Amino acid sequence: MLTGQQLIGNSESADSSETFHAINPANSETLTTAYHEGTEAEVDRALTLAEKAANEMRGYSAEKLARLCEKIAERLEANKEALLECCGAETGYPDPRLNGEFGRTVGQMRQFAAIAREGRWLDARIDHAEPDRAPLPKPDVRCAKVPIGPVVVFGASNFPLALSCAGGDTASALAAGCPVVVKGHPSHPGTCEIAARAVLEAVKECEFPEGTFSLIQGTTNEIGGAMVKHPATKAVGFTGSLRGGRALFDLAAARPNPIPVYAEMGSFNPQYIMPEKLAADPVAFAEALFGSVTLGNGQFCTNPGLVFVPEGADADAFLAKYRELVEAAEPAPLLNKGIQSGYAKGLENLEAHGIEVLRGKASAEGCKTAPALAVMTLTDFEKYRETVEEEIFGPSTVVITCPSCDVYAPIARDFPGQLASSVHAVGDDLDECQGLVDALSTYAGRICFNGFPTGIEICHAMHHGGIYPAATDSHFTSIGLSAISRWGRPVSYQDTPDHLLPDALKEGNPLGIVRLVDGKTA
Amino acid sequence: MLTGQQLIGNSESADSSETFHAINPANSETLTTAYHEGTEAEVDRALTLAEKAANEMRGYSAEKLARLCEKIAERLEANKEALLECCGAETGYPDPRLNGEFGRTVGQMRQFAAIAREGRWLDARIDHAEPDRAPLPKPDVRCAKVPIGPVVVFGASNFPLALSCAGGDTASALAAGCPVVVKGHPSHPGTCEIAARAVLEAVKECEFPEGTFSLIQGTTNEIGGAMVKHPATKAVGFTGSLRGGRALFDLAAARPNPIPVYAEMGSFNPQYIMPEKLAADPVAFAEALFGSVTLGNGQFCTNPGLVFVPEGADADAFLAKYRELVEAAEPAPLLNKGIQSGYAKGLENLEAHGIEVLRGKASAEGCKTAPALAVMTLTDFEKYRETVEEEIFGPSTVVITCPSCDVYAPIARDFPGQLASSVHAVGDDLDECQGLVDALSTYAGRICFNGFPTGIEICHAMHHGGIYPAATDSHFTSIGLSAISRWGRPVSYQDTPDHLLPDALKEGNPLGIVRLVDGKTA
Repeated sequence: MLTGQQLIGNSESADSSETFHAINPANSETLTTAYHEGTEAEVDRALTLAEKAANEMRGYSAEKLARLCEKIAERLEANKEALLECCGAETGYPDPRLNGEFGRTVGQMRQFAAIAREGRWLDARIDHAEPDRAPLPKPDVRCAKVPIGPVVVFGASNFPLALSCAGGDTASALAAGCPVVVKGHPSHPGTCEIAARAVLEAVKECEFPEGTFSLIQGTTNEIGGAMVKHPATKAVGFTGSLRGGRALFDLAAARPNPIPVYAEMGSFNPQYIMPEKLAADPVAFAEALFGSVTLGNGQFCTNPGLVFVPEGADADAFLAKYRELVEAAEPAPLLNKGIQSGYAKGLENLEAHGIEVLRGKASAEGCKTAPALAVMTLTDFEKYRETVEEEIFGPSTVVITCPSCDVYAPIARDFPGQLASSVHAVGDDLDECQGLVDALSTYAGRICFNGFPTGIEICHAMHHGGIYPAATDSHFTSIGLSAISRWGRPVSYQDTPDHLLPDALKEGNPLGIVRLVDGKTA
Repeated sequence: MLTGQQLIGNSESADSSETFHAINPANSETLTTAYHEGTEAEVDRALTLAEKAANEMRGYSAEKLARLCEKIAERLEANKEALLECCGAETGYPDPRLNGEFGRTVGQMRQFAAIAREGRWLDARIDHAEPDRAPLPKPDVRCAKVPIGPVVVFGASNFPLALSCAGGDTASALAAGCPVVVKGHPSHPGTCEIAARAVLEAVKECEFPEGTFSLIQGTTNEIGGAMVKHPATKAVGFTGSLRGGRALFDLAAARPNPIPVYAEMGSFNPQYIMPEKLAADPVAFAEALFGSVTLGNGQFCTNPGLVFVPEGADADAFLAKYRELVEAAEPAPLLNKGIQSGYAKGLENLEAHGIEVLRGKASAEGCKTAPALAVMTLTDFEKYRETVEEEIFGPSTVVITCPSCDVYAPIARDFPGQLASSVHAVGDDLDECQGLVDALSTYAGRICFNGFPTGIEICHAMHHGGIYPAATDSHFTSIGLSAISRWGRPVSYQDTPDHLLPDALKEGNPLGIVRLVDGKTA
């Protein structure tokens, strides 16, 4: 069933004879399909087709775009078994995780279909003319978003379904009317191919133009770079490492005509624990933290990587329980050798600075790796802050014991951009938190109370981003229903005849969408 | 009254003994005040103060921010006479222009005060919790914009009031709760100083912190670069040339932590004339076009620089009238020697390619310059397209005579980003325009019908931007009420106690603003 070829519009292509294989991280088994490395010529074909498709799709109704997203959800469901089997072999993720992520993936497709139909994201605004205004007449001015054009999507290794080939970036871009060319993540090329075929079936069934969607596979930085540099590319969505995201951002900024790169990158998501919360049940808190740190074997960008606690007996009880959980945990596979060695190096780097690291049981099988815990004093944190602020991607966390919670806000003010950050506080402690919340709002994209940031609700109010290095553009989110905003840009129409306006701006409001008319919601 | 010093918070500063003078472009007279070149140390002081001010302002109510903007408008009005006298000497603009631009400047301040109070720009969204949802409970998630932090503003030479020291960028940033450090344009340093003193008086009267506003003067690229590279700077607003905007964009993108540069840059704003419109009154059309091309002596970024007309008797009549107007026009001063020589070089460059250029009366006085007209065939346009697409800043336009209007849409599809573009069409011709409008929507920030883009309405639906090189970020506008959106970034609050939420997100809606609650406008 898998051919390992590039899926470019209606064609398959294997210009290069160089191939690569996926590896099962649970047992190091090399999977059978050989995937061809994409070439620059293939990138050019995919993006040239996408550019043509963009011109056709610009005129499509929201209804037609919504139906495509819904059809993709259907086709993914029809291929669920094959998709999850392949994905499990490529990622080592257990079935419940795969099922959960699959549900989120098809759910997102349908949510973005609804968002397209609802039309609020178009941000339609109408200011009527006042021909008699003195000293100058006021023109009729209307504004709505138009699709930005071909979007290149780089999926994440850790969400092979929900943030990959048919994931949130693809769903939101298609719902906005933008063609998509995906750069498949080389850790799960088969998952990408199956998902891409499902998307392409839907593209055909819904009679969208060839080039609405393409998939390019490859392991090199060059092939991704060629996609970012292609003249037809109008925007880039990326979820992954700081190094990878920054490299793409730099390429896009250096173009003769720079384009936006919406990169969601690394984060260590500081957690601040207030005394009453810790005192209430230090053991339960240890269990909850451990659950969050080891969710998806720690491979979440919202993983709580730094935990500040007030020192004392409650912290001791919490740490004792956490150590017990680390020691008892069974090793689980990380997604690939690169992540595994990065995790090991990150922990060794802490130890090189004299920071105590407790590791769980070792395993020689595949990429299996155990959780870890580092504990340090505030003094050591201040000494080694730069080292500790390097994200360690995996099931570890660093606990910093502090003589007083008064240090939290000043520490927070110096943090670089973070996707999320939590305050854990109950009772009277809540009255002490305003300064801390203010400090968090200077760096975080999301502030949580009494919960860990892992597990992201796909809703209107979700913001998954933040200032650099959490993301390259703090205005936009890569997860949640506002993610669609990235793929449209506003265009004003002045004194334009009604029949030449986009439907969103026609006087009679044929789409029935919410608009701002003369400054009032209508 | 003018000291020529940097105005840094509550202090004046003249670290450098190097100075520069403004020159009256109407007569080349060197104006008396010596302005000190800003230094890196002064930039650092201004931005360090701004960073401290940002932390205080983060907690300010919309009402307090709105009052500051209104007080600035008052203080500008109190200093109107001195401001306009100085501005006239520095720019050579006639009184009606100065009065009009002054009205727009204080009007903008009050409009952004109203936008701050109204609070819609905060984009407040609330998704209520569903604790009983299966399989996982839904958290309470709320999102609103928070001020982004210190903003550096580079004013434009051509709008010394409305797009400069106390112009739209400054007004919108202060209304959003962001401190502002202005880099004064060296063509009108006295205008900047008077406007800055008015802002600083308002800052004091409204009891805003020192550092809410500062002005740095200077003529070098280095001083502007230091402001963009300063760690405290969180965003940059710029209106000016493509070369200047791109240089700042590149500096910001190369920072360890890149920041957004909202640069509004060059544009030649193509105009497409359909036959019936031209036939209706070719002479009136010539007069209207000439009026737009020579408005502000052609120094508008929305100047109609390329005009496509159907060839034939109507075009001949239109061109005959336009030539007459050019020949009769009195030379008027351009803003400075740099603009004057750029304009001359641009016209010479056309002639070097064999394109006929008609110039009006010459003048040796100051920077006085006459309008010009270039006329070329479609064949020549296609041959010299790259040359013709270089913006000539000044009172000239290029008319391209075309054998058929069918070429308009294909030509348009290849244009780089433009701030604006117009279709001039009436009667049956309007039925032929859909393809052209679609093509314009691929490159333009604003599409006008039967009007020229000069003269920008400050309203909700105005978009003054577009894809590169019209602007560096096509999502945002630099003119119009949405300009405030640049200065806030969304932050999500998850399960946060009501008293720790920003007012915009509190359950009882104490600000009484429009919000999206559970997907519905409320």
